[in-house]
Amino acid sequence: MVGVLVNGYGSIGKRVADAVAKQDDMKVIGVTKTKPDFEARMAVTKGYKLFAAIPEKKHLFEEANIPIEGTIEDIIEDADIVVDGAPKKIGKANVENVYKKHNVKAIIQGGEKAKDAEDSFNSLWSYNRCYGKDYIRLVSCNTTGLCRTLYAIDSITDILKARVVLVRRAADPNDIKTGPINAIIPDPVTVPSHHGPDVVSVIPKLDGKIMTSAIIVPTTLMHMHSLMVETTGVTKDAVLDAIEKTPRIIKVKASEGIDSTAKIIEYSRDLGRLRYDLNEIAIWEESINVVDNEIYLMQAIHQESDVIPENIDCIRAMLEMEEDNIKSIEKTNRALGLLK
Amino acid sequence: MVGVLVNGYGSIGKRVADAVAKQDDMKVIGVTKTKPDFEARMAVTKGYKLFAAIPEKKHLFEEANIPIEGTIEDIIEDADIVVDGAPKKIGKANVENVYKKHNVKAIIQGGEKAKDAEDSFNSLWSYNRCYGKDYIRLVSCNTTGLCRTLYAIDSITDILKARVVLVRRAADPNDIKTGPINAIIPDPVTVPSHHGPDVVSVIPKLDGKIMTSAIIVPTTLMHMHSLMVETTGVTKDAVLDAIEKTPRIIKVKASEGIDSTAKIIEYSRDLGRLRYDLNEIAIWEESINVVDNEIYLMQAIHQESDVIPENIDCIRAMLEMEEDNIKSIEKTNRALGLLK
Repeated sequence: MVGVLVNGYGSIGKRVADAVAKQDDMKVIGVTKTKPDFEARMAVTKGYKLFAAIPEKKHLFEEANIPIEGTIEDIIEDADIVVDGAPKKIGKANVENVYKKHNVKAIIQGGEKAKDAEDSFNSLWSYNRCYGKDYIRLVSCNTTGLCRTLYAIDSITDILKARVVLVRRAADPNDIKTGPINAIIPDPVTVPSHHGPDVVSVIPKLDGKIMTSAIIVPTTLMHMHSLMVETTGVTKDAVLDAIEKTPRIIKVKASEGIDSTAKIIEYSRDLGRLRYDLNEIAIWEESINVVDNEIYLMQAIHQESDVIPENIDCIRAMLEMEEDNIKSIEKTNRALGLLK
Repeated sequence: MVGVLVNGYGSIGKRVADAVAKQDDMKVIGVTKTKPDFEARMAVTKGYKLFAAIPEKKHLFEEANIPIEGTIEDIIEDADIVVDGAPKKIGKANVENVYKKHNVKAIIQGGEKAKDAEDSFNSLWSYNRCYGKDYIRLVSCNTTGLCRTLYAIDSITDILKARVVLVRRAADPNDIKTGPINAIIPDPVTVPSHHGPDVVSVIPKLDGKIMTSAIIVPTTLMHMHSLMVETTGVTKDAVLDAIEKTPRIIKVKASEGIDSTAKIIEYSRDLGRLRYDLNEIAIWEESINVVDNEIYLMQAIHQESDVIPENIDCIRAMLEMEEDNIKSIEKTNRALGLLK
């Protein structure tokens, strides 16, 4: 039973903590917060030991009457690994200033750059590369989703060129500061976007074979991708079969009423998922098509949660707990109750 | 001076009427409405002669104290041409039930199907084909925008394959009934969407060479397109030059603050345009790129107004008023005060 410290009990951190708590081979030894907000109180209510992420701010928790066990300095050396849930760029700083200092392994999230870790993790593609490593970056929700779908395609044919337009949600549902309310933003305004190179950090053989552009739109629920993938040859049935066989991708049908990201979330709510999280990528079955050996499809990505099972697998790989990535994936999926 | 009847003084109709009124070789002999709403009253205030589009409903205008000259039956045979501004599918019915019966030429809008008219109009591509014709369809805002950009590209290289993802505004600004408020909708959920074939109705040589997919997002201001166009060979400078030379396309710069569709509309408001209409297509200069002979760019389409100058040119073509499409385009642009 390995001990995991979640440093930053926020959007990703709280989900990782809950996912770790459901595994039988790892446990949460503590979670940290920078400030005494409702999430900090909820962490304690859930039974997690709470530590101040910034030692000088421990008194704020005491003043707010939120039980606090100490600071990150008091717990970090008990951890076998830290999952970093800090905001963008802070994760990189934490590696240098905290994790290396205390000689503890750490996973940083997709807001950091590929060069800031030893490798970039996806359960299907780079589990073996990250095996036993110390500092690994878990790629973003969009990159994770693309890696899964491209794995399905790569399992049946050779990818000559993948073109993807990413239509990104503007803000998470709890974010009241970020816009736009009524506009479409080319972001970045340059083409290609950074998403292609980020996929290549996981799948080096796609270097020069993936072009992405990205747009932000006024919605909070999910991202959406329109994929166009040129291959050496493939049939639509083979694509359907490959998607069926690939973990953490589900097919949804507009013909059954799942005609938008809002309906996908409604589906996940009806499943009874905690926080309505859909860790699986959803591909619209009707969108899958093959014309002139090029695969077309549209998929939706739950930005808050698709990387969570990958964090669990990454812990197993880095701590050399399971050599076979598929066995880890299946173990994680069972514990989290994923559809596949 | 030819006489134009605008049948359906709505979103497109009112703009066509105002555009016709600005030309020196055509005039508005009347506009019709189905119901006595604020637009009907505004038409009269502006000096247009108002007629009931549905003869049996003329009394509604009288009861609402909106001055009405008669019904469409009283004016239609005085028209040299009708510009139909009726909702989707009604335009087709009007051709069969009204325009052919009265033996008057008519332009129907992009909500109708290609097969419901003799040809599909775009000022750059099919002016000559539509010359002297009786019933012509003016393609939709999205198709019009794509035709302009593909014209620029076609002027400098051969198009091998064009891939376009259309990110569509959910509703026009005045529409309070249509959603979504917070979702992304694949629409259609099948790939390819109808937009490719619609472009082919204007540009037959692109048959089999254009694939489109479409998504609806919660915004009202503009559509956005991400284009990926494989060519036989081209440079970025040549693309920039071709866009510069193509009428009714402008370049905008995120570096100058025009970083979203909202800022494009702000720009158009600052230009003092009536109803803040931007008849020109806006391409983000920073988005233009060429990699491996493939052109990438992102453009925004003002869905309410980009087809308006095309309607004017289409009138000239169908009534054989000007043989040279470029001369018509320039004349229209001058009268409307377009940037180019």
